[in-house]
Amino acid sequence: MKLASLKKGRDGELIVVSRDLGRYCGAADIAPTLQAALDEWDIAQPKLEARFEALQDEQITSFPFTPAECHSPLPRAYHWADGSAYVNHVELVRKARGADMPESFWTDPLMYQGGSDTFLGPTEEIAMPSTDWGIDFEAEVAVVTTDVPMGISAAKAEDSIRLLMLVNDVSLRNLIPGELAKGFGFYQSKPSSAFSPVAVTPDELGHHWRGGMVHLPLHAILNGEKIGSPNAGVDMTFNFPQLIAHAAKSRPLGAGTIIGSGTVSNVDRAAGSCCLAEVRMLEIIADGKAKTPFMQFGDQIEIAMYDENDSDIFGTIHQRVVQYVNPQ
Amino acid sequence: MKLASLKKGRDGELIVVSRDLGRYCGAADIAPTLQAALDEWDIAQPKLEARFEALQDEQITSFPFTPAECHSPLPRAYHWADGSAYVNHVELVRKARGADMPESFWTDPLMYQGGSDTFLGPTEEIAMPSTDWGIDFEAEVAVVTTDVPMGISAAKAEDSIRLLMLVNDVSLRNLIPGELAKGFGFYQSKPSSAFSPVAVTPDELGHHWRGGMVHLPLHAILNGEKIGSPNAGVDMTFNFPQLIAHAAKSRPLGAGTIIGSGTVSNVDRAAGSCCLAEVRMLEIIADGKAKTPFMQFGDQIEIAMYDENDSDIFGTIHQRVVQYVNPQ
Repeated sequence: MKLASLKKGRDGELIVVSRDLGRYCGAADIAPTLQAALDEWDIAQPKLEARFEALQDEQITSFPFTPAECHSPLPRAYHWADGSAYVNHVELVRKARGADMPESFWTDPLMYQGGSDTFLGPTEEIAMPSTDWGIDFEAEVAVVTTDVPMGISAAKAEDSIRLLMLVNDVSLRNLIPGELAKGFGFYQSKPSSAFSPVAVTPDELGHHWRGGMVHLPLHAILNGEKIGSPNAGVDMTFNFPQLIAHAAKSRPLGAGTIIGSGTVSNVDRAAGSCCLAEVRMLEIIADGKAKTPFMQFGDQIEIAMYDENDSDIFGTIHQRVVQYVNPQ
Repeated sequence: MKLASLKKGRDGELIVVSRDLGRYCGAADIAPTLQAALDEWDIAQPKLEARFEALQDEQITSFPFTPAECHSPLPRAYHWADGSAYVNHVELVRKARGADMPESFWTDPLMYQGGSDTFLGPTEEIAMPSTDWGIDFEAEVAVVTTDVPMGISAAKAEDSIRLLMLVNDVSLRNLIPGELAKGFGFYQSKPSSAFSPVAVTPDELGHHWRGGMVHLPLHAILNGEKIGSPNAGVDMTFNFPQLIAHAAKSRPLGAGTIIGSGTVSNVDRAAGSCCLAEVRMLEIIADGKAKTPFMQFGDQIEIAMYDENDSDIFGTIHQRVVQYVNPQ
């Protein structure tokens, strides 16, 4: 089934969306919000599935679905941790600055925790005071978990995955070097992320969901021009169950935890890139310097994934960069 | 006023606690949870204050207050970011390993984001599979904010502080070097934190709350023996408004954001330490090696702050370390 959150209050209002993303019907009588559904998933899930089937069968009053009326499926969440599962991307970034990559990066995932209190909606503007911060998108896949006990094995972690979404993990590239040099990881350099309009259960992906990853291209389109469409199931060194097990090593994870894949990236360069930083790294490796700028005010980014019938699975993240005006 | 959350469901049930921590009365009719109160603070605050006054004046039915019946004031939160405001502590840690401290650390706060989906209660056990992970406490002060706009100035940030609490920022010292070497900051090395039984409004601290910091000693007691009682208002290089402004540089903060001070530490060594890592660093600097071990199974840590009449302000964090048995 497919779920989304209409804009309403801080946590949105839960709706069920048709498979073709054309129609929706309310679900707040089952659970007022997606977080509430995740908190009591075993109770909510069969009711939501029944509502979804009724919507598919046109047995229920429905309304036209419009992503612009939606917040991110979880407008705010208690935990958002992002891995770097496409290790070849990490290797590339390091190669561009002449740094070797520790061998352990192939066996021990990189993961950082992102701000989850103020997500952007899927079509909400990215407002920053200056392009000097190096505004970039990162197109990724993410899973939403149920409660996960501390110390879970990767083998058991797949059962904890409830939903999948796409992410734009907005990054401020020019704030990263200074921040990482301090040794405490990302904080200011990772502003609010945005998620796809719709979250889907793994069964919606059919055979494209296998081995704990999504075997479909992820498309990143900047100002109408394709930047990349690497396959999210190729070159993913750590699958989602492994990322979940990593996250739960020393503490349990709460229901509604979002775990991201990191920027999707394929070794096959013909697939293109899912962030401008990678485009620039390839330019540096090829020509000694980057010629593609980071995002400018007015630039638009679209992130989407399609099934074999070219149907949009998650709805499209479509955001424009604008200048932030400080209200003070 | 003083607020707490009785254990109930995932988010607890909001109660108002008397100034002397002796009695409480329900407040769920005003707001079901502390997060709900923070989400609509302007509406909830006057009603909660009135309830608190009625409790103080014994005009309302009340019950004996027992910290063991409480969860952390926010059992889960959307954002928990911890600064390192006592820079002399950071300098000491680095000195012990022979590393200079960048001059910028005196002007640009260190901050990391901690897991906020599964906080421990104030008297809940700290369960870890092995003491080899180097289990340590960190006694800190924290504030809880309302909504904070992106780009807020430190001058304006103090108005966003709604509540204060104490924190035990549990740390796994032996996981830190490997994790920081990866360059992405803390994640597995910072398991679930615990907070004081009670959160208090700044006015409860009277003249001890000034300049955006708390001017009282913070006591850390290990197995009944005082490890330290440094004054939280001394040697705090960055006050809470500065830490909030740092956190809000590139995105807004949601209501209920928790910002921590980092381990409280005074240059005057007679005040002792608020974590075992600092004790060990001082031993290394003095004798070339650490003799105090990290926490062992059965060890108990108490963290508390008292006013000038020796009254416990926040209730005491009192946790025991036990061995975690993996349910798998």
